Amino acid sequence: MKQRMLSGSLAIAAVCAAGLLAVPSAISQSTAPMLAGVDEPTLTELALSYRILVNERVLDAYGHVSIRHPKNPNRFLMARSGELAPAYVTANDIMEFDLDSNAIDLRGRALHSERFIHGEIYKVRPDVNAVVHSHSRGVIPFSVSKTPLRAIFHNAAFLGDGVPVYEIRDESGENNDMLVNTNAKGRALAKVLGAHPVVLMRGHGDAVVGPSLEVAVFRAVYTDVNANLQIQAAMLGGPITFLNQYEAKKRQGMERTWEAWKRQASKHDPARR
Amino acid sequence: MKQRMLSGSLAIAAVCAAGLLAVPSAISQSTAPMLAGVDEPTLTELALSYRILVNERVLDAYGHVSIRHPKNPNRFLMARSGELAPAYVTANDIMEFDLDSNAIDLRGRALHSERFIHGEIYKVRPDVNAVVHSHSRGVIPFSVSKTPLRAIFHNAAFLGDGVPVYEIRDESGENNDMLVNTNAKGRALAKVLGAHPVVLMRGHGDAVVGPSLEVAVFRAVYTDVNANLQIQAAMLGGPITFLNQYEAKKRQGMERTWEAWKRQASKHDPARR
Amino acid sequence: MKQRMLSGSLAIAAVCAAGLLAVPSAISQSTAPMLAGVDEPTLTELALSYRILVNERVLDAYGHVSIRHPKNPNRFLMARSGELAPAYVTANDIMEFDLDSNAIDLRGRALHSERFIHGEIYKVRPDVNAVVHSHSRGVIPFSVSKTPLRAIFHNAAFLGDGVPVYEIRDESGENNDMLVNTNAKGRALAKVLGAHPVVLMRGHGDAVVGPSLEVAVFRAVYTDVNANLQIQAAMLGGPITFLNQYEAKKRQGMERTWEAWKRQASKHDPARR
Amino acid sequence: MKQRMLSGSLAIAAVCAAGLLAVPSAISQSTAPMLAGVDEPTLTELALSYRILVNERVLDAYGHVSIRHPKNPNRFLMARSGELAPAYVTANDIMEFDLDSNAIDLRGRALHSERFIHGEIYKVRPDVNAVVHSHSRGVIPFSVSKTPLRAIFHNAAFLGDGVPVYEIRDESGENNDMLVNTNAKGRALAKVLGAHPVVLMRGHGDAVVGPSLEVAVFRAVYTDVNANLQIQAAMLGGPITFLNQYEAKKRQGMERTWEAWKRQASKHDPARR
Repeated sequence: MKQRMLSGSLAIAAVCAAGLLAVPSAISQSTAPMLAGVDEPTLTELALSYRILVNERVLDAYGHVSIRHPKNPNRFLMARSGELAPAYVTANDIMEFDLDSNAIDLRGRALHSERFIHGEIYKVRPDVNAVVHSHSRGVIPFSVSKTPLRAIFHNAAFLGDGVPVYEIRDESGENNDMLVNTNAKGRALAKVLGAHPVVLMRGHGDAVVGPSLEVAVFRAVYTDVNANLQIQAAMLGGPITFLNQYEAKKRQGMERTWEAWKRQASKHDPARR
Repeated sequence: MKQRMLSGSLAIAAVCAAGLLAVPSAISQSTAPMLAGVDEPTLTELALSYRILVNERVLDAYGHVSIRHPKNPNRFLMARSGELAPAYVTANDIMEFDLDSNAIDLRGRALHSERFIHGEIYKVRPDVNAVVHSHSRGVIPFSVSKTPLRAIFHNAAFLGDGVPVYEIRDESGENNDMLVNTNAKGRALAKVLGAHPVVLMRGHGDAVVGPSLEVAVFRAVYTDVNANLQIQAAMLGGPITFLNQYEAKKRQGMERTWEAWKRQASKHDPARR
Repeated sequence: MKQRMLSGSLAIAAVCAAGLLAVPSAISQSTAPMLAGVDEPTLTELALSYRILVNERVLDAYGHVSIRHPKNPNRFLMARSGELAPAYVTANDIMEFDLDSNAIDLRGRALHSERFIHGEIYKVRPDVNAVVHSHSRGVIPFSVSKTPLRAIFHNAAFLGDGVPVYEIRDESGENNDMLVNTNAKGRALAKVLGAHPVVLMRGHGDAVVGPSLEVAVFRAVYTDVNANLQIQAAMLGGPITFLNQYEAKKRQGMERTWEAWKRQASKHDPARR
Repeated sequence: MKQRMLSGSLAIAAVCAAGLLAVPSAISQSTAPMLAGVDEPTLTELALSYRILVNERVLDAYGHVSIRHPKNPNRFLMARSGELAPAYVTANDIMEFDLDSNAIDLRGRALHSERFIHGEIYKVRPDVNAVVHSHSRGVIPFSVSKTPLRAIFHNAAFLGDGVPVYEIRDESGENNDMLVNTNAKGRALAKVLGAHPVVLMRGHGDAVVGPSLEVAVFRAVYTDVNANLQIQAAMLGGPITFLNQYEAKKRQGMERTWEAWKRQASKHDPARR
């Protein structure tokens, strides 16, 4: 009896081993051309960036990533919402929006209520081609504190001498729902972001931007890392030497990081932390 | 060629899916209808919530989750105790209790000594349909401190401007065993809980309630997350901007989180962290 | 070509799946009766406790666990040293020592230089039947601080109102090698331990004792957890409510924890964190 | 019966061992003798040290490890750069450099811009045969603080009463790019390192040296561990008892750690954290 169970288990194990090899192709599986003018690798890479950010503990069940449409600057691409947590986003889940954050081809799918973070930033920041919104644990303490989040190490040089904090009460008043879920709120957030790479959202998280998906994802991760390091440095007491204005201009080579992250996200199920 | 690989992958995926589906059915494996009026999905979901809370580091070997009986408001359902750690609870381990926390069908099984936490709360909180008791690491420091645990970010808005702390010495005196293991102690705890969603238990952990299992589990996790964030914010020094009374009323959409958690808990053995 | 590689991979995967099922039996594999009067389950459980403590982050490459010989109170059992890290200890690695910490059947094997921690404690503590020596991360900060480590939550009630700290300079002077590697140093350590369950070792780690292996392992883990929680509570500032003398006497039910830990350690390779 | 199961298990274990051994040989797979005078085990161990340091959270996508050429003290060996993250370094990726940090056999491969850290240290430290450059999270807060990083526990005795901090502005001025990417900067760094085992690099990370690869890797890990412990101790407030000058001279046995780390790194894909 035990013998037969063993044989059965071996058979299933063998088949599953082969099945697991099918996962990466499942991410890019497209039953029909969904988004005009966007090739599959672009959709796959955007989907994969969700997984990368879950692996790096920047996204949990919340948060989203978008890119400006590669062919049409007045559109952006982002995953649908509903029950779809970031860890499980695939290329098939990517939708197209105009810069007012209207879905182009809704087909009854649920949308992220805070898609306006993305649309309104793309409107006023022509240099930005990717946006990450996260509730990353490192930044939330800074979002509710008077202590500015500043570049403490060179991998986060882009933080410069401080990033702005969006206080939703400023334009929405005391009685607000803490969400950037309208065009007006998105506009207010984009205004606070200004020319910065990051804006903290008080009691909420952050929005991080970049000229490419790779840069935006890198910045989202290293903003969170820098935040944690700055809290540790605060524990030691005394003055902290932050990056000066020149050091903050440092260009960051990130190919190595991006390749490693994509490789890790392609192979391993982020839900299996 | 790609078509054939796709068909092959689908076939393998189907077999694996069947194999993987064997796991949740193992969780819900029922040799006989154990609890009248409770269907298997309900039992399975309750069992799964134990695993979810282990995955989220809210439960370790201690702690328990209950739901009010879906058909009889004077009963509640919770796992047996004994050697059964939360990570291994299955639908077969769920037992039924009256609101005095007596087991309906004992059959010699070991009971959680602190089941009174659940029964006594259900008695006085008709709005509550699920209770989590945990020793989560984030809350214990607050339970022994004079600093109130308050909502610092929007995912924990339900914490409002502070949660009460149950000091067992108040009704049990200095010479107590730190456990809510009688009806009287459970009543005292429920009284301190009042209308709040959470009550901290000094030097012990917390009890978290909700109108559904999903809400109670979500709150248990985000109470712990908020606690950790509040400690981090404290390290930065200076005033902290907590959620105000309006922001604290924010309703939290949690479908995405619940689905992701269930999916993760169904597939992966939480003991394999 | 790819087809053949796939078949080959499937075959290997199937065989490995079966092979992995053989791991637990390998832990208890005994080529010959090594230790008179000690049965295999006892040796296996002692070996497994090393893995448990690695899983719980109490042991890393350093540290050791011993039990008093179940038949001869003047002997104790502990793993050999050399290149053998705790994560890989098996029943075959267990050796027997007298209470002067001499190996009974050396056979050229390397011994832990700090075995004297165990032998000298067994001499003066007839109530103790298991000892854990660790470099756990939680306790080291307390070992070098003036702040006493005290029971902050009920799972660590055994810490009472403080544990002693062994300062090696007291008997060995300034010019010491930080190791309890002689009978004299072991005696000094045991004297500081006194009747306590735990003694911190300044700038080193701790020694934790119990009437059984299960209790000693439980205490080793919860000493570390309590230490981390006490540091977190310190972050909040203000007075901390520690357990009082009565609460500290609380007996801790630990069957559930022990079973869960053994189950986890039996199945999963702790090196695969 | 047990005998037959044992034989069966042994057989299966052997096949799996062969399968698993395929992994390290993949690491050392050499299509042709690449580096004259360096045997394959040496290259494999250097490649493996990258993985070890990723497992121990000392390296992420950044950082590098080198050894002095075993036959020619005027050469050193280090991995190529480009898209190759530390977690994926294999023996094939190791390149040879002269002490001016010029590649001996470039063949169009990308080099780490900060290879000068290694070359310049080897020039002035004839006792050093291995160098690790990391951005480890523990040390960065110390690198920007006035609080010296000191040996707090015996496994990090080599830190002694403090390690120097390289402030790049001292020789490169305010307008610098934060990188040790020239011979001159490397010389300045080596000067600050002096005779120490570690030099922190302000707002960047550290460089750690040793007489062997094993010692340098051990020191890189335990510098990071000690840093984290020192921050925790700082949180308790009050004076900290650091190791005195005698205790700091303690020789550290590290065979057990090295074997455990190599074993762990050989079997498991560090990207699967």
